[in-house]
Amino acid sequence: EVVRLAVIPGDGIGPEVVAATVPTLRTALEAEGHRLDVTSYDWGGERYLRQGAAMPADAADLVKRADAVLFGAVGRPDVPEHELVWGLIIGLRQQLDLAVNLRPVRAFPGVPTKVRDTDGVDLVIVRENTEGEYVGAGGAAHAGSGHDLGIEVAVHSRRAIERAAHQAFVLAGRRSGHLSLVTKSNAMRYGYPLWDRVVREVGEHYPAVRLETVLVDAMAARMIQAPRSLDVLLASNLFGDILSDLAAVLAGGMGMAPSANVLPGADVPGIYEPVHGSAPDIAGKGVANPVACMLSGAMLLDDLGHVGAARRVRDAVAATLRDARHHTADLGGNATTAEVASAVLHTMESQ
Amino acid sequence: EVVRLAVIPGDGIGPEVVAATVPTLRTALEAEGHRLDVTSYDWGGERYLRQGAAMPADAADLVKRADAVLFGAVGRPDVPEHELVWGLIIGLRQQLDLAVNLRPVRAFPGVPTKVRDTDGVDLVIVRENTEGEYVGAGGAAHAGSGHDLGIEVAVHSRRAIERAAHQAFVLAGRRSGHLSLVTKSNAMRYGYPLWDRVVREVGEHYPAVRLETVLVDAMAARMIQAPRSLDVLLASNLFGDILSDLAAVLAGGMGMAPSANVLPGADVPGIYEPVHGSAPDIAGKGVANPVACMLSGAMLLDDLGHVGAARRVRDAVAATLRDARHHTADLGGNATTAEVASAVLHTMESQ
Ligand SMILES: CC(C)[C@H](C(=O)O)[C@@H](O)C(=O)O
Ligand SMILES: CC(C)[C@H](C(=O)O)[C@@H](O)C(=O)O
Repeated sequence: EVVRLAVIPGDGIGPEVVAATVPTLRTALEAEGHRLDVTSYDWGGERYLRQGAAMPADAADLVKRADAVLFGAVGRPDVPEHELVWGLIIGLRQQLDLAVNLRPVRAFPGVPTKVRDTDGVDLVIVRENTEGEYVGAGGAAHAGSGHDLGIEVAVHSRRAIERAAHQAFVLAGRRSGHLSLVTKSNAMRYGYPLWDRVVREVGEHYPAVRLETVLVDAMAARMIQAPRSLDVLLASNLFGDILSDLAAVLAGGMGMAPSANVLPGADVPGIYEPVHGSAPDIAGKGVANPVACMLSGAMLLDDLGHVGAARRVRDAVAATLRDARHHTADLGGNATTAEVASAVLHTMESQ
Repeated sequence: EVVRLAVIPGDGIGPEVVAATVPTLRTALEAEGHRLDVTSYDWGGERYLRQGAAMPADAADLVKRADAVLFGAVGRPDVPEHELVWGLIIGLRQQLDLAVNLRPVRAFPGVPTKVRDTDGVDLVIVRENTEGEYVGAGGAAHAGSGHDLGIEVAVHSRRAIERAAHQAFVLAGRRSGHLSLVTKSNAMRYGYPLWDRVVREVGEHYPAVRLETVLVDAMAARMIQAPRSLDVLLASNLFGDILSDLAAVLAGGMGMAPSANVLPGADVPGIYEPVHGSAPDIAGKGVANPVACMLSGAMLLDDLGHVGAARRVRDAVAATLRDARHHTADLGGNATTAEVASAVLHTMESQ
């Protein structure tokens, strides 16, 4: 079988971590008797500077030709960030209607963390991915008068909440049977109370799953204080964003956190991307941690049904990380991106 | 001099931590030759059940007779949370126009934390306290049709941002000269870009303060990974809420985090409250940690110019916490609220 992969390396360290990941995926697939066919798109900040748009108008159609998309990162200091974010990653998520963003966090043995006692941490954030605070609606009033108002409108729909909720309940059912919904209904009166209501209703179809509702502020503290009390979290676009960066700390930081933007049950390619950004401060130095991107690749393989190849990638990453000589700077080591990549490949070949 | 204190014990553990705090404040003031005059209001969940409102209509006028307000916590399982929250604490913050919420977090020697290497952590979150996502605007559409929408409107005004920003720059100038603004302008296009712009403008009046702007998701991770890289944070109502619960973890948890709702430069009483909630699970057991409330009391004394008395409270709390036998359950100990209170009093008397 041939896996048709669309690759969007993007900006900053994006191309570096993607370059480290693609051979890993190829090797894993070939070991299982499959092939990888890669089409690369030069979308991102440079294209924006050159052509005024981070991606072409038919970008969504182009990537639909692929089975899945591997995305690096977007953002560069000389381009207003929202241009690249809306012009590329938020744009694609919304145009492809990728309903949920899955953000698993797992503590790998041997990786140091700033939080004590993270052994065995293994949780997944199911993030609504198309709307909420990210809907882009709102406006300004009294601009320039000295009494300016910035009005930001968040839209939460039953449809989007239901889609994310079903995904979360199914996942929780397959895992520990415990789902934590994150809202802020004591302070926000219209959006999050709808979440509470709809998720409770969806839960009636999943009687084996125990649902709890936790305020986002309390959840932020609990994420660090009692991470093993958590298994599957369901959150809005904004809360999922904040909590997933935070959860990454439990696994050693942003360099360790993969994600998958998917539309479950539909024939639309998912976008798989590390949670980290383009990290301009270390871009071009060859020292970025490629693990988040590799693990995103493993999620991609899993979702395409190549669970054997996915396991090869994950096992090789885990084995590599056990040795501190293969830790990049973010993990307190001094391995380069290329060294980690070749260690992972080497481990895979000797498996 | 007489300090006229209005006390709102509230619900759950609120009355317990307030009862532990008032004698501490009284002793500290008397040691400096002053007196404490307390008026207590029975506002909260019980009043709501009895009278249909958590506080009377003239609550703001009543507390304006005092120099300052000490508030415990609000919330009980048998009352919808938003009723008590809007009917009491958010209501009072908005009616008294308490522009900023100051939330300092300081790691006390001897207190265990889930985060490694927190020695010397000492930061303050300056939270906008009157609007943003907490403005209570929005509505529902298509309700009951199966296509419901919950629409939540956040309002950010130049005026409110400026008030909070001035406070933050002044504070940063008195401390390390380093201010971190927390926004999310890559995804939200109207509210947070206004924050970025207004805060940069206000900063021109404070050339000695170095301003950085950090995305809220990145800040959540950095708060745990590099807390000593932070000194003063400036954040919207929602982001300040989330980040202050998280920051509390650096000091040992919610039981350690005080706060002050104030309108700088105006003759309006501030409301001083622990960041934690009413904790119904441990209410009535006498095991709540009173430190957050005591430290809120110390902020209150400071703001009234009783810096000597404030220092007595803080020093006594610090000395008490050095001994693990005085740690409550949240800190891994088994001291009761009353034991901590009497240890603090005892320390103060022997100073
Ligand atoms: C780039 C940014 C808009 C994005 C988000 O907030 O979704 C990123 O932080 C992420 O988590 O994928
Ligand atoms: C009770 C709740 C509305 C409140 C808030 O979000 O402001 C609390 O969490 C706080 O931090 O003071």
